[in-house]
Amino acid sequence: MKVVYLKEYLELKEIDPPIPGENDALIKVLMAGICNTDLEIINGYMDFEGVLGHEFVGVVEQAARLEWVGKRVCGEINLGCSKCLYCLKGLSRHCPHRSVLGILNHNGAFAEHLTLPVKNLHEVPATIPDQTTVFVEPLAAALEILEQVHIEPNHDVAVIGDGKLGLLICQTLKLTGCKLLLVGKHERKLSLAENWGVKTRKLEQPSLEKFDVVVEASGSPAGFSTAMKAVRPRGTIVLKSTYHGNLNLNVAPIVIDEINIIGSRCGSFEAAIRILVQNLVDVQSLIDDILPLDRALEAFDRAKRKGSLKILLNVSNA
Amino acid sequence: MKVVYLKEYLELKEIDPPIPGENDALIKVLMAGICNTDLEIINGYMDFEGVLGHEFVGVVEQAARLEWVGKRVCGEINLGCSKCLYCLKGLSRHCPHRSVLGILNHNGAFAEHLTLPVKNLHEVPATIPDQTTVFVEPLAAALEILEQVHIEPNHDVAVIGDGKLGLLICQTLKLTGCKLLLVGKHERKLSLAENWGVKTRKLEQPSLEKFDVVVEASGSPAGFSTAMKAVRPRGTIVLKSTYHGNLNLNVAPIVIDEINIIGSRCGSFEAAIRILVQNLVDVQSLIDDILPLDRALEAFDRAKRKGSLKILLNVSNA
Repeated sequence: MKVVYLKEYLELKEIDPPIPGENDALIKVLMAGICNTDLEIINGYMDFEGVLGHEFVGVVEQAARLEWVGKRVCGEINLGCSKCLYCLKGLSRHCPHRSVLGILNHNGAFAEHLTLPVKNLHEVPATIPDQTTVFVEPLAAALEILEQVHIEPNHDVAVIGDGKLGLLICQTLKLTGCKLLLVGKHERKLSLAENWGVKTRKLEQPSLEKFDVVVEASGSPAGFSTAMKAVRPRGTIVLKSTYHGNLNLNVAPIVIDEINIIGSRCGSFEAAIRILVQNLVDVQSLIDDILPLDRALEAFDRAKRKGSLKILLNVSNA
Repeated sequence: MKVVYLKEYLELKEIDPPIPGENDALIKVLMAGICNTDLEIINGYMDFEGVLGHEFVGVVEQAARLEWVGKRVCGEINLGCSKCLYCLKGLSRHCPHRSVLGILNHNGAFAEHLTLPVKNLHEVPATIPDQTTVFVEPLAAALEILEQVHIEPNHDVAVIGDGKLGLLICQTLKLTGCKLLLVGKHERKLSLAENWGVKTRKLEQPSLEKFDVVVEASGSPAGFSTAMKAVRPRGTIVLKSTYHGNLNLNVAPIVIDEINIIGSRCGSFEAAIRILVQNLVDVQSLIDDILPLDRALEAFDRAKRKGSLKILLNVSNA
């Protein structure tokens, strides 16, 4: 089968299709999305070698539990051991023995087929089209913030970073009724947020007010110091970017102002699907282009360009 | 009056006694404690110039509200503006316009007299001796952790750092019933904690288990990486040390493991006084020596020695 494979460099190549294990489903991929994490992995983050891709929609072709065959699904990307305390508590995304689809020891979704445990799958209601379903995974990651932090309707909240994830986060935070400001770099993305009713500001504009919650989604170490300047004493900074590299941090202001810093990664898919069914967020405006899998390398070049939004790979029509 | 004054170096000198403002009390200092923060300030932290010292017990000699005169008191160290949102919410310790006794724009307690707003004062019950009362401030700082983090009776908790503050923190956390481990360097301090029923481990011993909450009270950047290794996914690190210097931090594990990092500084005095009245913590064992104010420089040398515990200055018998 055709896949996007990362070793020392990214290439389109043929490999054998995966063989599903006892509890797995074999899934024919329909469509997959390129995420900034994929770009960071190419830069060396996670030391991953294999098939990239973790945002997808597909159809189950084989599964031990036959009722799944033929269903259109998306899937949670963390494959837990099912035995440790985290897995038993329903937090397999923190299983210390986990593999992660297209990120850690498990081939991903930029491929004609992938395997996932049946318990990772979520059937997708027919009302959600493929190109919307691909956003379930990043939308779940955005909703994870609300699982971790109680954002009150009167909170002042700033999101640093107007990338794909930052724009999804803005849309989910807006639903809380909070006073929201998006701080970003790109005219086009900021005006997209303005269309949704979110206030925006260019990163270089100075800011005097302080925020109860600051979400750092800029994907760069500089975003953290912007967040530190913007957060109020006893406020919360949510770290949402995963990137390759270190941060040089002055700890004293964190202690003196009693700042709360929370790392935030994957979320649960169920709420994301509910929100898409109810049309509470606009993901269509985030799609810049849809290219066939054959043109994946071109798609990656597009995704890497400054200011670009979501590039999808159409795998079924490769 | 005689004071311990910091400019480029620390010296014992004579300055004019402070003149209390309209809402202030003039307090004759009886006893004061040397804190690690004082040592960090001497190293350049906070760029402070003036009279050091923020842990004290004294007697009110003058106050507009006459009922305070003659009372034995300790005092909250943050002097808020009384007007901002933080002050109005009772969080004057986060007032952006605050000064701080012996730390920021307000002369401190290593002096025969100091001034503080009357509203900062707490009368000390006669059952608590002077040398115990000096611990109200650091004990309140230890209790601040319990104000910020819900430590459950079944939590696994590690405290990194067996200094004065680490040992106070151990004693307050022990009261929650949690499974507590103190990780430290000094045989003598660790055996003190063992006497209180706290399990201990030498810093160099490897650790495989993971903790729900890790309190970093080592006062050094190395303590943070020890804390990161010890905390479980979705666990909490409390940053309790204020020190002069930066930390080189890999952000990815914080995001991937969704770690919660909370800076923690001053606490409220009321609970600290209640706990001392009820004899729930042992502060006597933390006192290494009591020296007269005249011998303050010698006292600082003693406090700086590796492995030393609390050195108190007896000011009334200077």
